[in-house]
Amino acid sequence: MPSLLIQHADLLTLDAQDRVLQDTAIAIKDGRIFALGEIPRDLAPDESIDAKNHVALPGFFNAHTHAAMTLLRGSAEDLPLDRWFNEGIWRTESALQEEDVYWGAALAACEMIRSGTVAFADHYFWMHQVARVVQESGMKALLAWCVFGSDFAPEMGPTTLELTEEFVAEFQNSAGGRIKTMLGPHSPYISTERALERSAALAHKLGVGCHIHVSESQGQVNNSFKQFGKSPVAYLNALGIFDNPSIAAHAIYLSDDDIEILRAKNVSVAACPKTHLKLAMRTTRIVDLMRAGVHVALGTDGAASNNDLDMLEVARLAALLQKHDTGDATVLPSTDALKLATQHGARAMGFGNSGVLQVGADADLILFNLDKPHLVPRHNLAANIVHSARGGDVNYVIVNGKVLLRQGELTTLDEEKIMREAERRGLRMTQSKLAQTQQYRAD
Amino acid sequence: MPSLLIQHADLLTLDAQDRVLQDTAIAIKDGRIFALGEIPRDLAPDESIDAKNHVALPGFFNAHTHAAMTLLRGSAEDLPLDRWFNEGIWRTESALQEEDVYWGAALAACEMIRSGTVAFADHYFWMHQVARVVQESGMKALLAWCVFGSDFAPEMGPTTLELTEEFVAEFQNSAGGRIKTMLGPHSPYISTERALERSAALAHKLGVGCHIHVSESQGQVNNSFKQFGKSPVAYLNALGIFDNPSIAAHAIYLSDDDIEILRAKNVSVAACPKTHLKLAMRTTRIVDLMRAGVHVALGTDGAASNNDLDMLEVARLAALLQKHDTGDATVLPSTDALKLATQHGARAMGFGNSGVLQVGADADLILFNLDKPHLVPRHNLAANIVHSARGGDVNYVIVNGKVLLRQGELTTLDEEKIMREAERRGLRMTQSKLAQTQQYRAD
Repeated sequence: MPSLLIQHADLLTLDAQDRVLQDTAIAIKDGRIFALGEIPRDLAPDESIDAKNHVALPGFFNAHTHAAMTLLRGSAEDLPLDRWFNEGIWRTESALQEEDVYWGAALAACEMIRSGTVAFADHYFWMHQVARVVQESGMKALLAWCVFGSDFAPEMGPTTLELTEEFVAEFQNSAGGRIKTMLGPHSPYISTERALERSAALAHKLGVGCHIHVSESQGQVNNSFKQFGKSPVAYLNALGIFDNPSIAAHAIYLSDDDIEILRAKNVSVAACPKTHLKLAMRTTRIVDLMRAGVHVALGTDGAASNNDLDMLEVARLAALLQKHDTGDATVLPSTDALKLATQHGARAMGFGNSGVLQVGADADLILFNLDKPHLVPRHNLAANIVHSARGGDVNYVIVNGKVLLRQGELTTLDEEKIMREAERRGLRMTQSKLAQTQQYRAD
Repeated sequence: MPSLLIQHADLLTLDAQDRVLQDTAIAIKDGRIFALGEIPRDLAPDESIDAKNHVALPGFFNAHTHAAMTLLRGSAEDLPLDRWFNEGIWRTESALQEEDVYWGAALAACEMIRSGTVAFADHYFWMHQVARVVQESGMKALLAWCVFGSDFAPEMGPTTLELTEEFVAEFQNSAGGRIKTMLGPHSPYISTERALERSAALAHKLGVGCHIHVSESQGQVNNSFKQFGKSPVAYLNALGIFDNPSIAAHAIYLSDDDIEILRAKNVSVAACPKTHLKLAMRTTRIVDLMRAGVHVALGTDGAASNNDLDMLEVARLAALLQKHDTGDATVLPSTDALKLATQHGARAMGFGNSGVLQVGADADLILFNLDKPHLVPRHNLAANIVHSARGGDVNYVIVNGKVLLRQGELTTLDEEKIMREAERRGLRMTQSKLAQTQQYRAD
């Protein structure tokens, strides 16, 4: 693996001391940070980056998304959650073909790398197509094949647990450790009880966690009590879904008992504030959960609800919305918001040696170009990144020491071809006869 | 004035029919849109723009800002409103020098043009310095010299009404009509009653409106009732502040009677949702106000609270936060959010012939580059702009037919020099002895 020397960068290390360093060098060897500041004189790097006027920080970890749903971006606008699902998304997804997942995820990878994301936790169908994108792009990922249950939406392609088992066996820790896997039971409100039980049993057998949607609406919670006599969190816990470290996406409507289960079971909550805003939901109580000792990470959700995959925007919205909802402007200061989007996500996704700039850590880092009027003056570097910068200001992205974005240019993906294919496939899906006529109404 | 031909653009016209046009030409002559679609064959434009893969829409009108406060960006973070004001901003502003206003506003102009803003409503000190920036940059502006009252904060420089009167006389409709003026009494909670009365009398005499902060917190409303027996809106109205079309910034805590006053007096409310989120305030009830017939526009507020001057972000946050706060995902669809940020602002600021792409309108328009992965596919052009695009995707900015941003390059301002000067002056202000020691506590 080539060695890399970054010189003259300012650093937001996000280490235990929250150190901010100026005009500092970073040496990278064998995919890890080898030296910070004091660089050995005899180092002969394969590549040097002059990072004057740039700030380096750990790359973003997107802890909940459906990458291929970029194909549906903007296709179901200004609808409440149930109509967005039933009249918009699921109708269009009925036209989804296996190859679409590859091209949609590839489009997502272009967008994510360009905005500083080094890893994503994906939850969708035909996951081996997403694994191809991870292999080719150089990103890291935690992949979960969505399982509904045997009698729901068979047109979504093969979603059985047997396929999932083969997928985990083939891809766990593949691509040099860049790919990790979980099981992907969809949710307590869609997956059948039998599918959840079988998912939990398979997770035990394979030694992996589950990535699942939890408690997105009050209606879901009410139905869970009516149907199972328990909250969604208690129901999933009783079925064994949380027995290995897992990801609960959204987790908005939680009781104190739910919060205690999530803490005790070491479940990571993936909050997706932009989806929550756009679909007029409440939002994950990030501050309360963190105070209670629950591990919280951030996700974009899919581009059909977000409508982009920009983790910097998500970190900003998490901070802004927590301030607004709690009425307390002091919560989630910029450094904490960055930690949610980086090292918290890394831990949630099983990449615990990433998300910080320190010697020995995985070299998963990004460089923002600060030479822009909206980033002047530099009173507070972390605030300038969280509250003033944009995804497009990212100039370099490095994963395991490999440069995936160099001076704003993607090094691993054929962006022009991917955009063209994705445009064509996205329009085919919304224009398809199936999408126009078929309806899944949750009566 | 040179003529201009834009070819092959997609258009979000924001006209009365919300027309979206594909692969269309726009001809511009004498600062106005001369033809749309059908271009006269004998037109020999001075400049042609090939806008393939671009969408054209009216430029953004920022209806409330303090441009020079870019110098304070990031200097007072994660503080509640009163401490942000008293311990952060005002202490640093005590070191503000007249020339700082020029450089801070110039930095703001660079940032605003780059993110598609064609006009801004400024409220600050030494307004002739901001007028210089407007003259040089080619932007439009509505300028209001901030008036506190005679006994408050004299170190802010000359803020008397006499200077304001001279300023209005000299600059109203100057720069070829690009500069308009209002009076700038700060607010009912800071300006003395005498200063407000004199402001209203001078506004009558000069035939201009007032740009003023209104009802940003419940405490301000409570104090107003205690001190004056009236709400802030009723108090200002009784003093005659709203007798000419005016701008009420923020206007968060409003009674039904307040709303009726704002409607009857044709006051434009400038909502600043990012400031509201960041300082943990509630927010302007945009949807309720519009339903009641009040004219609503959007503003960034200053970069000390926002922390940027990106009107696209403000339009997005307005839509997202109204959905969240009302619990209704259908409110403020993308086209309506764009209208708030464009033609509503234009009307509020006295540029009523702008904010729409139609023949005869002022040629104040912007072009977004759509050839980016986060803007693919194009299911919904307005949604892609409001919910997926970034300020940095703006590639051309045109004001009165003059190109201020061409292929991402500023044509009128020396950006490198401005960034350097602004950095130096911003750091000088926060490091000054005055800023460290002087305190204005509102006990």
